[in-house]
Amino acid sequence: MSGNSFGKLFTVTTFGESHGAALGCIIDGCPPGLELSEADMQADLDRRKPGTSRHTTQRREADEVRILSGVFEGKTTGTPIGLIIENTDQRSKDYSKISEQFRPAHADYTYMHKYGVRDYRGGGRSSARETAMRVAAGAVARKFLEQRLGIRIRGYLSELGPIRAEKLDWEQVHQNPFFCPDADKVPEMEAYMDALRKEGDSIGARINVVAEGVPPGLGEPVFDRLDADLAHALMSINAVKGVEIGAGFGCVAQKGTKHRDEMTPEGFLSNHAGGVLGGISSGQPILASIALKPTSSLRLPGRSIDVNGNPVEVITTGRHDPCVGIRATPIAEAMMAIVLMDHYLRHRGQNGDVTVSTPVIGQL
Amino acid sequence: MSGNSFGKLFTVTTFGESHGAALGCIIDGCPPGLELSEADMQADLDRRKPGTSRHTTQRREADEVRILSGVFEGKTTGTPIGLIIENTDQRSKDYSKISEQFRPAHADYTYMHKYGVRDYRGGGRSSARETAMRVAAGAVARKFLEQRLGIRIRGYLSELGPIRAEKLDWEQVHQNPFFCPDADKVPEMEAYMDALRKEGDSIGARINVVAEGVPPGLGEPVFDRLDADLAHALMSINAVKGVEIGAGFGCVAQKGTKHRDEMTPEGFLSNHAGGVLGGISSGQPILASIALKPTSSLRLPGRSIDVNGNPVEVITTGRHDPCVGIRATPIAEAMMAIVLMDHYLRHRGQNGDVTVSTPVIGQL
Amino acid sequence: MSGNSFGKLFTVTTFGESHGAALGCIIDGCPPGLELSEADMQADLDRRKPGTSRHTTQRREADEVRILSGVFEGKTTGTPIGLIIENTDQRSKDYSKISEQFRPAHADYTYMHKYGVRDYRGGGRSSARETAMRVAAGAVARKFLEQRLGIRIRGYLSELGPIRAEKLDWEQVHQNPFFCPDADKVPEMEAYMDALRKEGDSIGARINVVAEGVPPGLGEPVFDRLDADLAHALMSINAVKGVEIGAGFGCVAQKGTKHRDEMTPEGFLSNHAGGVLGGISSGQPILASIALKPTSSLRLPGRSIDVNGNPVEVITTGRHDPCVGIRATPIAEAMMAIVLMDHYLRHRGQNGDVTVSTPVIGQL
Amino acid sequence: MSGNSFGKLFTVTTFGESHGAALGCIIDGCPPGLELSEADMQADLDRRKPGTSRHTTQRREADEVRILSGVFEGKTTGTPIGLIIENTDQRSKDYSKISEQFRPAHADYTYMHKYGVRDYRGGGRSSARETAMRVAAGAVARKFLEQRLGIRIRGYLSELGPIRAEKLDWEQVHQNPFFCPDADKVPEMEAYMDALRKEGDSIGARINVVAEGVPPGLGEPVFDRLDADLAHALMSINAVKGVEIGAGFGCVAQKGTKHRDEMTPEGFLSNHAGGVLGGISSGQPILASIALKPTSSLRLPGRSIDVNGNPVEVITTGRHDPCVGIRATPIAEAMMAIVLMDHYLRHRGQNGDVTVSTPVIGQL
Repeated sequence: MSGNSFGKLFTVTTFGESHGAALGCIIDGCPPGLELSEADMQADLDRRKPGTSRHTTQRREADEVRILSGVFEGKTTGTPIGLIIENTDQRSKDYSKISEQFRPAHADYTYMHKYGVRDYRGGGRSSARETAMRVAAGAVARKFLEQRLGIRIRGYLSELGPIRAEKLDWEQVHQNPFFCPDADKVPEMEAYMDALRKEGDSIGARINVVAEGVPPGLGEPVFDRLDADLAHALMSINAVKGVEIGAGFGCVAQKGTKHRDEMTPEGFLSNHAGGVLGGISSGQPILASIALKPTSSLRLPGRSIDVNGNPVEVITTGRHDPCVGIRATPIAEAMMAIVLMDHYLRHRGQNGDVTVSTPVIGQL
Repeated sequence: MSGNSFGKLFTVTTFGESHGAALGCIIDGCPPGLELSEADMQADLDRRKPGTSRHTTQRREADEVRILSGVFEGKTTGTPIGLIIENTDQRSKDYSKISEQFRPAHADYTYMHKYGVRDYRGGGRSSARETAMRVAAGAVARKFLEQRLGIRIRGYLSELGPIRAEKLDWEQVHQNPFFCPDADKVPEMEAYMDALRKEGDSIGARINVVAEGVPPGLGEPVFDRLDADLAHALMSINAVKGVEIGAGFGCVAQKGTKHRDEMTPEGFLSNHAGGVLGGISSGQPILASIALKPTSSLRLPGRSIDVNGNPVEVITTGRHDPCVGIRATPIAEAMMAIVLMDHYLRHRGQNGDVTVSTPVIGQL
Repeated sequence: MSGNSFGKLFTVTTFGESHGAALGCIIDGCPPGLELSEADMQADLDRRKPGTSRHTTQRREADEVRILSGVFEGKTTGTPIGLIIENTDQRSKDYSKISEQFRPAHADYTYMHKYGVRDYRGGGRSSARETAMRVAAGAVARKFLEQRLGIRIRGYLSELGPIRAEKLDWEQVHQNPFFCPDADKVPEMEAYMDALRKEGDSIGARINVVAEGVPPGLGEPVFDRLDADLAHALMSINAVKGVEIGAGFGCVAQKGTKHRDEMTPEGFLSNHAGGVLGGISSGQPILASIALKPTSSLRLPGRSIDVNGNPVEVITTGRHDPCVGIRATPIAEAMMAIVLMDHYLRHRGQNGDVTVSTPVIGQL
Repeated sequence: MSGNSFGKLFTVTTFGESHGAALGCIIDGCPPGLELSEADMQADLDRRKPGTSRHTTQRREADEVRILSGVFEGKTTGTPIGLIIENTDQRSKDYSKISEQFRPAHADYTYMHKYGVRDYRGGGRSSARETAMRVAAGAVARKFLEQRLGIRIRGYLSELGPIRAEKLDWEQVHQNPFFCPDADKVPEMEAYMDALRKEGDSIGARINVVAEGVPPGLGEPVFDRLDADLAHALMSINAVKGVEIGAGFGCVAQKGTKHRDEMTPEGFLSNHAGGVLGGISSGQPILASIALKPTSSLRLPGRSIDVNGNPVEVITTGRHDPCVGIRATPIAEAMMAIVLMDHYLRHRGQNGDVTVSTPVIGQL
């Protein structure tokens, strides 16, 4: 209820601060009988891990996850899965300044107002480091969805500041440090990032996530529509400021005759809905897109106040991502996986397993 | 758990189909001692009501709400508030066609896949008629927030298809049938809608909602960030396809030096964050914006399939909104109110009442 | 979250005060396709109804339930089922005394401390009248469990004050106003109740509930054990002060060799566990027993205080049950049904439908 | 939702198997600013710890708890508190037998039916070892309740098989290995346990828990009554088969004139209600009592079946408690503390802090 859990039947509860002893997570409600080992999660964790290219923070974290419970003889048992990642790179440093100042556009000020105390080391609980556990939990959901239902969830960076990917070549996504699906734009992105780093500034990004093979019928009317839960999940990722499903804001200027996805026995003729009708999956690919703000940890000075309300000038040194969006693709995929997993179990609880009572039409 | 409830401490659970006997709602967790009568809700209900201008559906519903419990001698008692609106205009008509066909871009097809049965009369549970109860519940939250904390929640239509409001004059919002804050654009909107109606087509819209006077500290890390819950709430409104907080998708191409809202003892120097930092309210106005798709109920024929998978041509006759966004402003306000109310109670539960442990800086 | 909902997947939320306009309830999560009409609920409601014999309160309530949503063409649609019972016998009376005094052993004093206001008419929300909606919701669960899984849930009064039923003849339970399964004890009970009524006093009772045909596997470790949820459900019924599962308090003085229910391929050799092992159903009958306190609404004067803290003497006139336990059997059955229903859906969500992966052994 | 969480606002989620790598827990919703260290929990953990006398299992577990998050500079920060206890005494042994057989009256059979797989080492998740984490979490709640509200929670063993404590001398409770408040009965208990151990049998027990200083007003109508949540919490403890509040089953044969706790300006004249009226605390001490069954892990052979349904004779060797009730006192206290803590926060959320709107009368 205090917001550190997500999912109703596949429930992920996380703990941990950026510079605390460890990050951890409990997955409750995972179906039994799923083959699972640390390796299944490590692949996704490594994709999110800092320090894999010069374009992300140089903090070094092994991010090695350990399963503490819920798996026996290589299979999930249906009991809660306890996960832990020990923090290894907690560089001892002088926190006297940060403890007294509120960095602009950070959670320092709001945590202090909420709780009256805060763990100021590296942002504490508000650090994006927390998302490591989402990725680990998402990997479990993803494996189940793939094995059991054939669902495939993939994401990519579609915009890096002013640079927009114009081709969607899935093969390319993992060939560059940006998760960019358009190889032609990678050199431009590299140059842009190098200049930005030199400048000391940061930039926003847009990430798209696609789930294919989702059976029709997932999602609950009326408040827990599949798209509403997706919006919740994706907006809960650090730095996200916008979420679109399907046509998104593009539908503001669309006419109904264009937007409506006509159907034929062979399938839908378009997918402006993004795979969700009335909050329930239609069998088409689920399409989501998110905007990530530029990080506010800059070495360029900014105006702020201290804990006593006096004006100060803040400079953030240390190791930071100049574009937090770059590492966000695996996180967005993970949240999509958790939402779909949760809704699959919820659907199965009320309605029995997914079945085909009416003809499922083809996909676009 | 089946998605018909919203809110953890201020919990709104609704029921009712478009052409059923009644719509209803239970508000659980409302603080005791709030003066409340039907009139408090009726004003907002009337703003959402169909048939108030030629630009919305001509279905006539009195939408008269009745309080059945939880209020005694004019005040809330802390026990659940039961609300009901009887459906009056359930025009008897021939449903044989609609019962056999799936209207494109409607929930017909997905409800059928989910449940194997569906109430096809007027869209059943998937009808936007369900939002009447959100408006009623939102009015209770709004009244409490205003009286207890001085919070003011207001919305307006910022785009109608290709027409964009360029001025924000709150006085104008209720002077025209569009909730448009820019009087100069109203004639253009009227002409556009008249042409559209003649054409038989529909159009999308964008709605903005603003909450002023929100104390710093509301919102829960990490999954139930205030903005994540807002995204959930707003995306759960029928026809919404996108949600932005503050700068929204605009931050993709923003640099950090621009986006970060610098602070001085006199206040924040900008509000790109939209009043939320790290998922917690900062004391600045909360800014949200949503995209609503064009309705798919068109008298222009569209291709679809019937329940046996055969191709059909669908024409939707009857009374429909050519721009569902027009009536959406009160609904978006209501969802914002419910989210803030819920988070205020959640905050008070864990942390005690909102207090000022650090200086609250001025608002922009 | 404010306690007016029960069940995680089959969720029952109720509203309504004793002398308010109506009682109501929303059942969210009911599987689609169940044939359902008011008649299915009315039978159970009539068993709970006041005024059916001289041994219960003479308040006359038709307790006619009306389905407002969630059922279409005679079948549940999977959307929320709205139910309502209008209060008809709200005898206008002088409430000036009751509004100023706290009746001993009633909720008057505690509601006032909790909320600062209270609906004092007939106990308001704390009245046992609220249980009518539990019975209606329980009837839906019961019907599903019986049709889908062959589960049968039945209860009976095993003790009325000092008189104990010594035979369990299910045929007898509905042949007398006490739900007593031992016909020989009925005359004794009638005489006892007649004397008690003359005396102006009240008495406690014990009710047993049995569910047969429950498949093994229902119940969730570790906090939501089936027996823990049953204890919650049963203790939430007005006037209940104790709950036992299987041997209950009898096991305090039992040795392990006696208590353990040995198993053979033909079945368990005893059922001290009451059908629950490790919080999960074993396939044996679920056995629960509850204690109900004597009502405190007595015409014999009792010492109390008024709202200003002054001593007063309270006499409760009006129509009251001298043994609230008598009408509790259908309520206890309903709560058992709701718990089993909820756990069946929860089990199905995580694990798929109930199956037989290991031999199910016979029942005792 | 899969049952490994307890509490709505003070939420405890646990993981861990008897012979797995570790036990763990996340406490979400703890108020900020509470001084907290491992030592605060260790005292209670040590009271529950095995091997402290010859009357409990000789398994040696240090049960050393470590705080991984949520505490900074000695105080809680309001973010989730991660706790871990590494399992140290996982004696390697031959599990081939236990993996193929279902021990009678254990959860082996039901877990297998539920999940299709099970961690058979030491009972896996169904082991009472899981309760260590409840004790740790309960210690946090207990400290807050004591410091903030002056609430004191204490328990004792009132019956050990046929031996009943006849005096309640709180000083004695921690002077003997049984938590017995009657020093005169301790020699008898010791002799009884020695004989039982020789015999190879086990015995049940009764534990009472008392909370003093609870303010009036805690508890939520109607399903989450304070007593209903207590029943849930206490019945969820391993081996518990019965729960009583106040007079409990004693009220079956009580008359109303006796049961009703009359009030005077100086206080209540009795406490048959056990401190709860209408599900809400009255300001009197909360009184709960539970029955614990005798353990079924006996070296005396018992009849059972194996995983193929064949008859087998089961003998449980190894280290087991002949009376699991002996170590249950700290667990029952912990669950009482968690329930009260949760209800205090829930009350504060809806109603603001506990206040005295009407005179609080004296305690008995």
